[in-house]
Amino acid sequence: MRIFVINGPNLNLLGSRQPEIYGTADLSAVQEKLEDLASELDIEVQLFQSNSEGEIIDAIHRAADEAEGIIINPAAYTHYSIAIRDALQAVKVPAVEVHISSIHSREQFRSISVTAPACAGGIWGMGIDGYCLALRALAGMTARERTPETSQ
Amino acid sequence: MRIFVINGPNLNLLGSRQPEIYGTADLSAVQEKLEDLASELDIEVQLFQSNSEGEIIDAIHRAADEAEGIIINPAAYTHYSIAIRDALQAVKVPAVEVHISSIHSREQFRSISVTAPACAGGIWGMGIDGYCLALRALAGMTARERTPETSQ
Amino acid sequence: MRIFVINGPNLNLLGSRQPEIYGTADLSAVQEKLEDLASELDIEVQLFQSNSEGEIIDAIHRAADEAEGIIINPAAYTHYSIAIRDALQAVKVPAVEVHISSIHSREQFRSISVTAPACAGGIWGMGIDGYCLALRALAGMTARERTPETSQ
Amino acid sequence: MRIFVINGPNLNLLGSRQPEIYGTADLSAVQEKLEDLASELDIEVQLFQSNSEGEIIDAIHRAADEAEGIIINPAAYTHYSIAIRDALQAVKVPAVEVHISSIHSREQFRSISVTAPACAGGIWGMGIDGYCLALRALAGMTARERTPETSQ
Amino acid sequence: MRIFVINGPNLNLLGSRQPEIYGTADLSAVQEKLEDLASELDIEVQLFQSNSEGEIIDAIHRAADEAEGIIINPAAYTHYSIAIRDALQAVKVPAVEVHISSIHSREQFRSISVTAPACAGGIWGMGIDGYCLALRALAGMTARERTPETSQ
Amino acid sequence: MRIFVINGPNLNLLGSRQPEIYGTADLSAVQEKLEDLASELDIEVQLFQSNSEGEIIDAIHRAADEAEGIIINPAAYTHYSIAIRDALQAVKVPAVEVHISSIHSREQFRSISVTAPACAGGIWGMGIDGYCLALRALAGMTARERTPETSQ
Amino acid sequence: MRIFVINGPNLNLLGSRQPEIYGTADLSAVQEKLEDLASELDIEVQLFQSNSEGEIIDAIHRAADEAEGIIINPAAYTHYSIAIRDALQAVKVPAVEVHISSIHSREQFRSISVTAPACAGGIWGMGIDGYCLALRALAGMTARERTPETSQ
Amino acid sequence: MRIFVINGPNLNLLGSRQPEIYGTADLSAVQEKLEDLASELDIEVQLFQSNSEGEIIDAIHRAADEAEGIIINPAAYTHYSIAIRDALQAVKVPAVEVHISSIHSREQFRSISVTAPACAGGIWGMGIDGYCLALRALAGMTARERTPETSQ
Amino acid sequence: MRIFVINGPNLNLLGSRQPEIYGTADLSAVQEKLEDLASELDIEVQLFQSNSEGEIIDAIHRAADEAEGIIINPAAYTHYSIAIRDALQAVKVPAVEVHISSIHSREQFRSISVTAPACAGGIWGMGIDGYCLALRALAGMTARERTPETSQ
Amino acid sequence: MRIFVINGPNLNLLGSRQPEIYGTADLSAVQEKLEDLASELDIEVQLFQSNSEGEIIDAIHRAADEAEGIIINPAAYTHYSIAIRDALQAVKVPAVEVHISSIHSREQFRSISVTAPACAGGIWGMGIDGYCLALRALAGMTARERTPETSQ
Amino acid sequence: MRIFVINGPNLNLLGSRQPEIYGTADLSAVQEKLEDLASELDIEVQLFQSNSEGEIIDAIHRAADEAEGIIINPAAYTHYSIAIRDALQAVKVPAVEVHISSIHSREQFRSISVTAPACAGGIWGMGIDGYCLALRALAGMTARERTPETSQ
Amino acid sequence: MRIFVINGPNLNLLGSRQPEIYGTADLSAVQEKLEDLASELDIEVQLFQSNSEGEIIDAIHRAADEAEGIIINPAAYTHYSIAIRDALQAVKVPAVEVHISSIHSREQFRSISVTAPACAGGIWGMGIDGYCLALRALAGMTARERTPETSQ
Repeated sequence: MRIFVINGPNLNLLGSRQPEIYGTADLSAVQEKLEDLASELDIEVQLFQSNSEGEIIDAIHRAADEAEGIIINPAAYTHYSIAIRDALQAVKVPAVEVHISSIHSREQFRSISVTAPACAGGIWGMGIDGYCLALRALAGMTARERTPETSQ
Repeated sequence: MRIFVINGPNLNLLGSRQPEIYGTADLSAVQEKLEDLASELDIEVQLFQSNSEGEIIDAIHRAADEAEGIIINPAAYTHYSIAIRDALQAVKVPAVEVHISSIHSREQFRSISVTAPACAGGIWGMGIDGYCLALRALAGMTARERTPETSQ
Repeated sequence: MRIFVINGPNLNLLGSRQPEIYGTADLSAVQEKLEDLASELDIEVQLFQSNSEGEIIDAIHRAADEAEGIIINPAAYTHYSIAIRDALQAVKVPAVEVHISSIHSREQFRSISVTAPACAGGIWGMGIDGYCLALRALAGMTARERTPETSQ
Repeated sequence: MRIFVINGPNLNLLGSRQPEIYGTADLSAVQEKLEDLASELDIEVQLFQSNSEGEIIDAIHRAADEAEGIIINPAAYTHYSIAIRDALQAVKVPAVEVHISSIHSREQFRSISVTAPACAGGIWGMGIDGYCLALRALAGMTARERTPETSQ
Repeated sequence: MRIFVINGPNLNLLGSRQPEIYGTADLSAVQEKLEDLASELDIEVQLFQSNSEGEIIDAIHRAADEAEGIIINPAAYTHYSIAIRDALQAVKVPAVEVHISSIHSREQFRSISVTAPACAGGIWGMGIDGYCLALRALAGMTARERTPETSQ
Repeated sequence: MRIFVINGPNLNLLGSRQPEIYGTADLSAVQEKLEDLASELDIEVQLFQSNSEGEIIDAIHRAADEAEGIIINPAAYTHYSIAIRDALQAVKVPAVEVHISSIHSREQFRSISVTAPACAGGIWGMGIDGYCLALRALAGMTARERTPETSQ
Repeated sequence: MRIFVINGPNLNLLGSRQPEIYGTADLSAVQEKLEDLASELDIEVQLFQSNSEGEIIDAIHRAADEAEGIIINPAAYTHYSIAIRDALQAVKVPAVEVHISSIHSREQFRSISVTAPACAGGIWGMGIDGYCLALRALAGMTARERTPETSQ
Repeated sequence: MRIFVINGPNLNLLGSRQPEIYGTADLSAVQEKLEDLASELDIEVQLFQSNSEGEIIDAIHRAADEAEGIIINPAAYTHYSIAIRDALQAVKVPAVEVHISSIHSREQFRSISVTAPACAGGIWGMGIDGYCLALRALAGMTARERTPETSQ
Repeated sequence: MRIFVINGPNLNLLGSRQPEIYGTADLSAVQEKLEDLASELDIEVQLFQSNSEGEIIDAIHRAADEAEGIIINPAAYTHYSIAIRDALQAVKVPAVEVHISSIHSREQFRSISVTAPACAGGIWGMGIDGYCLALRALAGMTARERTPETSQ
Repeated sequence: MRIFVINGPNLNLLGSRQPEIYGTADLSAVQEKLEDLASELDIEVQLFQSNSEGEIIDAIHRAADEAEGIIINPAAYTHYSIAIRDALQAVKVPAVEVHISSIHSREQFRSISVTAPACAGGIWGMGIDGYCLALRALAGMTARERTPETSQ
Repeated sequence: MRIFVINGPNLNLLGSRQPEIYGTADLSAVQEKLEDLASELDIEVQLFQSNSEGEIIDAIHRAADEAEGIIINPAAYTHYSIAIRDALQAVKVPAVEVHISSIHSREQFRSISVTAPACAGGIWGMGIDGYCLALRALAGMTARERTPETSQ
Repeated sequence: MRIFVINGPNLNLLGSRQPEIYGTADLSAVQEKLEDLASELDIEVQLFQSNSEGEIIDAIHRAADEAEGIIINPAAYTHYSIAIRDALQAVKVPAVEVHISSIHSREQFRSISVTAPACAGGIWGMGIDGYCLALRALAGMTARERTPETSQ
């Protein structure tokens, strides 16, 4: 089983950007944590980050052929990218939306997600542990549950 | 460590109510799953359900003295109970909001949560596995992270 | 055939509260009128009133096992109780929503019902005769029509 | 006592148009049902249908002189005809608004009625039985109740 | 110089409908008053009333050939008839919109006019004297002023 | 009979400001026209202009004692001065609101008047002739009609 | 194969009304163009125009029996006639909505269509050529595609 | 004279909950302060607190028979409990709404009160002194002023 | 201790303007009542009224140097004067906002205050007694409480 | 004559993505169909697809020099890309907006186009035939009509 | 060349009012800085401040005759004074709107300007340097650019 | 001192795109003007343009290491790119937002900026001179002022 972990704009700055909100761990720490858990669960993970909406869509499309699950943190695109939403809906791979911070305690616009309706589930506010919880969630899904339609 | 698991209105019907949305497992199945994981993590869990807003608030208040974490599925009250939100903010115990179904793929009003800003984090769309993921999340929180203010 | 007649908050004051809007008949007059018609139609009716949202939900749940139809006047809860709406949708018993007064000629917020989408039909503005018309409506429904899904 | 039964646009297709929503009975079945009940209640009914807003207003004006009650199903005009609303308010004859389908379980715009504030009461979701219930309601109204102002 | 005076739905009831709002004078009194003033100003007036949106549009079209000014009281159509607005814009005859009552002191929706942008000017709240003031206004307009574009 | 003619901000520039909208006549031309008609109707008119909201309110207050009618063009204050509206409502003198230009064919915000509900009637789009029409309207009002309450 | 071409209010003025927007060709030019193409495609076309909402609904109803396709330009009714929308949905004949002008570059309200959801497709901004493109579209539709449901 | 002092959800935590907003005095301090002033003014006060909407409504109903004034702090229910508003309107006892904190300087939703229109007056932002000011206000009301209708 | 009592537009008419809403007492009665209480509490009060927004701002500015508290009834300016709000926020003197009438039972726009967030507290619906209650409130404030920031 | 056919995000998946909405033909089928018609009409077509907003803008810019018409299906970017709209307005080449599916029968946000005001016309709901109809439309435009300004 | 520098309400407090937002420099420091730069650029500047909306309008009117450019900081009037906007549009002198603070990082209502559409340009967030930048901007404008119409 | 000048989509067309709005100078003219002023102020400037949101974010990230100030014209992205806003907030370099045209005199959506709250200041409507004014502004900022937090 292979899982794509897709990170959106400004997450390359994780660890140095507003650490009071996002913590001090950076993306390589996320990768390390995920790989530890993945090897325990016998899963392969591939981490990806881009500031470009188009490249994120490309990655989602590749996941259709190469992966059996998507963990996605669309960052700012969460709030307006109908294109990413459409991409997630177009592929038949279950996706879990992860947010590091407590998005419901920040600016009003951050509590609205246009991508969530295209995901099977989501996790927010758990720091970088959210990625590991999402990995467990995808690992635990039966084949039937992994199809987004059935959980709607 | 003791965790309160508080379930809101109509969740006593879990398993028989709209199984295409909520699945066929009932609350006792949730209890069994949670207790298995809890004993593995050396945690005690107490499950509670009520259709009454006042009784849910009372349970949150009790948690202030008797528990170190709250898993709460406020069900329909999620969308309008400012009283439950105030109760969660008044107690100093970290709470994780769980929704069984993919709330962002249903009616518009179900994607709005007035209780979320009073929680440290949340999990949605994972079926009853969401309760177990929430338990892991609370178990993994360090003392510092467990205070809701610090994750905002 | 047994029908539950569920009345929401402040209806215990019927007859004395704003009689220019709600008339001078009280709940016992409603009961008497309904029982006269019910015996004529060979139906059993059970009248219930509560000011508590939780108790109304409990009554709806009981109707799932004990009744074949619900007449409900949710009063003020009509306008915001998603929890009652969810309860009505969870049980497989057809419900008719009754309002005594001309709700569309009063404050703007009284013309919005969040519970109506969970009911098979409704009657408003007919005074306490509305309860009798609702009883006739439920009596006249064929088995097929009684399931709310088929009338949508 | 004479009652006008006024039907709005597309109701001439009743019975063949979207039968899963409106049922298979046509307007002549409505007429037959109403006449059976009317003769039982010693009332005369006159059925009328038009696709034209102007002709519906003309019919309401005639009712001022020739009838003692109006049953009106404004169909699509329900949602935007202020002219029909003004006509109903201008005549001193009590009106009952009937909708065959469960308008609150369909498109959002169908749950808004601009004509309802000019009616004494209303009935929705009961299929063509709604017309008979409306006839009983008008028959049961005392002279005082029939004036729309007094029920506001 | 010939002026068309076009009256919309329910104005045939003028004098008997809600006299506390519209006064007790009827349309023939309007006609008499207008003809007195018209002969004084050496103008010919033609009065017209219809409850039908289509017939009102037909009358506006005829005015293009037969009249040099339009006085129009679109009544309820004021608030939603884009078709009448388009008709007024399509003909090259200046129009004055008249409302008998103080529309800004009644329901909120009566203070919005979709037809006004297609008129050169308007008069409200003056009772049936409003028609005479409109006649004076059209009589006083120079040829240049009569074209609606130039006054925008 | 004495009438106050009150003009709001920027109307001191009438004649030179945007003549394609407001025409080339200035305030003294308005005064001359009004005095001609006033002497014909045996009325005394007093013209007043100020850019200050407070001075306009003072003038309305004076009218309570010194005049029997108000013609007011509140200009930009039309759209937000609740203070002028309150002043008009506080005095018992009927007011007619005049706008020189076709306010409904300009920016959206110019079609909203917060002062209109405190006036007996209004005239728009007639150029400076609107002042004369307003004078005729006030002259023609019977004592009963002059009280704003009775025309609502 | 027979196609109804239904034109709404003010289109009888085509060619003379605002030619800078609608061009100088009139309805008979539309008819001629359509008949040339129709005979080439071996289709019969019937052109119809009315200013009355009711007559347009009547024509749509007739199409159910007499035609296999509808080309409709509802003109101003596009923006508010739920009655025409209901008529289009009630008949089982595919409809194509045509607008002559670039509706998205004009007033905001012209970019909203309440009738479009009841049509299989639409064409805007192509001048009177839009009618011919619509005819080709209906001609090219296979039987399966002609049913509006299947293309949704 | 007897006054009911009714406190809503989470006010049982007064003194320990968010003291930077609500201060450190608890409900018994409120009681003590009120009783001191009450004995000075020769009034009897009865303090009551509940987290349950239904119990608050019950208390308002009891006040109809047992008290001559209500001081109510509906807390979170202020913002959405139409049921409490209806209860206040149903009883004929004047009510004063008290808020301890500066509600207009906190979250937007806290500045909206659905219960205020059913109260004779209100006091906000004065800390627990607000209860004493409310007691003075009720004591000073003449019989006429105590009826909510007369102060509107 | 000296308190400024600042009254906004139209309050010079107090006693004669709409006495059914504002009562029959005029500003000198307010002054007398306030001075009686003030001498009892050993406070000096200075009463001020203006219809001009600029003069009210000037008075607030003077209060910064000459007073230790402000009682302000901004009247109509309450609802839109961001300038007065800014002035109140600029000075370091605690302000209490007073409204004589039951503002929450009148027009919708009167329940919105843009000045309230700049005040420490407020009182509404108590008639002219509201001024005295405000005086007691300011007198009872400790130095710490008088700073608006600490009560937020 | 050369036409650019620009396809937006996710259209590279055409044929496999939600075929019940978009059909089973892929982009190469579109290309083939277009080239057949293009050679018949003596036009050259160049097909282009990108998921990147920036690359679509680059292609529109290139069209300014290399093409005489644009057929564009902006897909999800239709609903929010002001940048693409600006690009279309910046170049002097007429554009036709094509949507394959019946956008007005899907989610609400799909019926709103921010790019349409920058296009000369549009076609929706015709499947991939919409591209051919757009090609005919551009071919039939005279030089004058091809400039977007003239069709507004 | 002469430039008017017009400052709105509360700016007389500059330097002492909320220095963390507006800095510690007062208006005389602004004047000094402006005069230094003005003499360098060979321009005459006249500084003006008023808390009264009417006096600001008067100053703008005077600028029409006496100045060739306006620098205006309307302060709180920025957000609602349509009267000032109209004054700026009425005179033919180019205006630059200056805000000292970062208005887009403060309350939501401060990011909306009703006066900006009547200005040629604007500068915000630069502290009192914004006045000097505005002076340079006006100095650098060619005669053609100084007319607001040409830059729209 | 080094400043990045970042230009968003369609600005590569500057000089040829809508010159009546943007003028005839192109980006190289901007560069030349900026370099002249920069050498005078002893600053180094680097100009950058991209149509891609991702590349603009990359450039902002680079500025964190390589520059001491950012001049950014986000063009169309101004109105919806939360991702660019987040990037500006993540880096510790002060930014000035520049718009060439009078954005407040164009379409409504152009007066809303989602990126402005992340900038220290802004300049609009000054043509390409706005870039030079922005450079002067950044040059004049003291170290303390350059941090965006301190100017909020």
